[in-house]
Amino acid sequence: MKLPDIKLFITDIDGVWTDGGMIYGSNGVELKKFITADSAGVLLLKLLHIPTAIITGEETRMVSDRAEKLQIRHVFQGIRNKVACAEKLIQNLGVSLEETAFIGDDLNDMNLLSLVGLSACPENAPDYVKRIVDWPLPVRGGDGVFRFFVEKYLNETGRLEEALSRSGNFFSDQEGV
Amino acid sequence: MKLPDIKLFITDIDGVWTDGGMIYGSNGVELKKFITADSAGVLLLKLLHIPTAIITGEETRMVSDRAEKLQIRHVFQGIRNKVACAEKLIQNLGVSLEETAFIGDDLNDMNLLSLVGLSACPENAPDYVKRIVDWPLPVRGGDGVFRFFVEKYLNETGRLEEALSRSGNFFSDQEGV
Amino acid sequence: MKLPDIKLFITDIDGVWTDGGMIYGSNGVELKKFITADSAGVLLLKLLHIPTAIITGEETRMVSDRAEKLQIRHVFQGIRNKVACAEKLIQNLGVSLEETAFIGDDLNDMNLLSLVGLSACPENAPDYVKRIVDWPLPVRGGDGVFRFFVEKYLNETGRLEEALSRSGNFFSDQEGV
Amino acid sequence: MKLPDIKLFITDIDGVWTDGGMIYGSNGVELKKFITADSAGVLLLKLLHIPTAIITGEETRMVSDRAEKLQIRHVFQGIRNKVACAEKLIQNLGVSLEETAFIGDDLNDMNLLSLVGLSACPENAPDYVKRIVDWPLPVRGGDGVFRFFVEKYLNETGRLEEALSRSGNFFSDQEGV
Repeated sequence: MKLPDIKLFITDIDGVWTDGGMIYGSNGVELKKFITADSAGVLLLKLLHIPTAIITGEETRMVSDRAEKLQIRHVFQGIRNKVACAEKLIQNLGVSLEETAFIGDDLNDMNLLSLVGLSACPENAPDYVKRIVDWPLPVRGGDGVFRFFVEKYLNETGRLEEALSRSGNFFSDQEGV
Repeated sequence: MKLPDIKLFITDIDGVWTDGGMIYGSNGVELKKFITADSAGVLLLKLLHIPTAIITGEETRMVSDRAEKLQIRHVFQGIRNKVACAEKLIQNLGVSLEETAFIGDDLNDMNLLSLVGLSACPENAPDYVKRIVDWPLPVRGGDGVFRFFVEKYLNETGRLEEALSRSGNFFSDQEGV
Repeated sequence: MKLPDIKLFITDIDGVWTDGGMIYGSNGVELKKFITADSAGVLLLKLLHIPTAIITGEETRMVSDRAEKLQIRHVFQGIRNKVACAEKLIQNLGVSLEETAFIGDDLNDMNLLSLVGLSACPENAPDYVKRIVDWPLPVRGGDGVFRFFVEKYLNETGRLEEALSRSGNFFSDQEGV
Repeated sequence: MKLPDIKLFITDIDGVWTDGGMIYGSNGVELKKFITADSAGVLLLKLLHIPTAIITGEETRMVSDRAEKLQIRHVFQGIRNKVACAEKLIQNLGVSLEETAFIGDDLNDMNLLSLVGLSACPENAPDYVKRIVDWPLPVRGGDGVFRFFVEKYLNETGRLEEALSRSGNFFSDQEGV
């Protein structure tokens, strides 16, 4: 497979950045568990000037807070029709579907997974999702599968070493302690 | 095994929709972790007009909130005698025990598991539960075993493709972003 | 090994009833995750009139709340010297160390594990704990290892069927729904 | 490999003392899950008069609270440049980099991992981290990898038995219950 030149990574949240868990509390609170590994995927892309976008069917403060922490600007929540949302976004950014990567895991991701230039899903996605993606990945949702997706793409296109090198300089250049 | 024509899915919660975890807080809060995968099971059944019912021995706001989110109308909490509860429900819905599927995992589920037309339990149920169910499933509680149960039934009765097709249309028909 | 006639089960909490996890919040809350499977162990013992006691080095509301939920009367928290605590308890209950079972997993459990009539630890205890117990069990802490310990003991002493039978009657005798 | 005489253990937090999970709540709360096993590592070192220090890129109350609970005095949070922070600390403590052990798992740990006398990472660290450490350990982050690191070092330098013996006396010497 000749890999497209990806200029935008779009990611689902539940089941990708999380293990699909939705934690409910007796006081009405809801919790989601993210993993710091995925933030490294966002950082490596950023060091190469490739933006990350979030498109999710749910609408929660947890995703807003996580996106703000990781300085992700393109965040779309409460989206029922992910294809329509993605098409508007790529138009605004001036990229094509062929230059877009998307990782999702479930029923409401299938239409968009079929359209993008590079599609992926976690190891524990249903078989009927795995069959339609380019890369069914060997990492479960919530266990760093977004980072794995990013690093696999960078590695196969020969850019991982450059990203890691920039990361090393990024941290050693920080002032003081 | 000739599969019955199931017209109602009943599910236990703790150990089925969750891994059995009951998270307690120093401020008195209690938490339960659900998984979004199971909501796909509810959706696929709904697209085929098969209702889902919850019967659980515990009584918590978390289950009420989760049921409301997934638009499940038949929710019975704090139930000590699940057989008596199920018999009343199926009478109201006009279905038979033979047309009812039930998934549970523990001591208080065993009586009802022995009576329904199709019974199942998660991979990590005790051996004495596994021995009495039709389908001891290969998925752990809290890891999407309810969805697995639903999809296995739909697949073996030849209706999974239809449900997935309806799901695809359901999401692509949503208005805008 | 000839099994002693156990008249008291003592259990550690962290690493046994939990996976050792101590969840801290930015608002100062602390959380522990119990598992409903272990409550079945307490119930089966209760149906055979064998009490369960908790001895733990930590001191938290979560353990008090869990013990109250499961109607466990003998709860000792904040215990640094578990041997001294256990000796006082068995004296009060009129049982001997030989008639006492204890499951623990860590440094502060080792002295007591060496003294009781039947000792056990979870699969993920350190090797130096596993070497000193009668039963290094094949279940991890927080995954139902207390229940497993109870059921293994009941099974090997020929009383599991009786306990399960009493449990079936217990639930079918409950009034209404 | 001839092991250096370690006089200071430095540890990262996220991905080492935790599985990397960052749990966000709809009320703005953030949670981290520690594991009691790692506290045994701190205790064993303390019984041998070897201090533990924390250096982490994040800055949260959860780490402050955990450090206070375990009586760890050297806690550095919000650190972007871990090398600069560590160099200042070892100067203050009068030890050398060669006498320092460090366990970390990610991009911002790599520079420091390359400099210390004994470096380690969890099993689930990225391959490019595993390649630069002395000991890629067979335990995942959040599953007691810090304790494993400490005990492996003590074992290979012949001091584990002494530490365990001191621990046994520590608990049996506690007053009353």
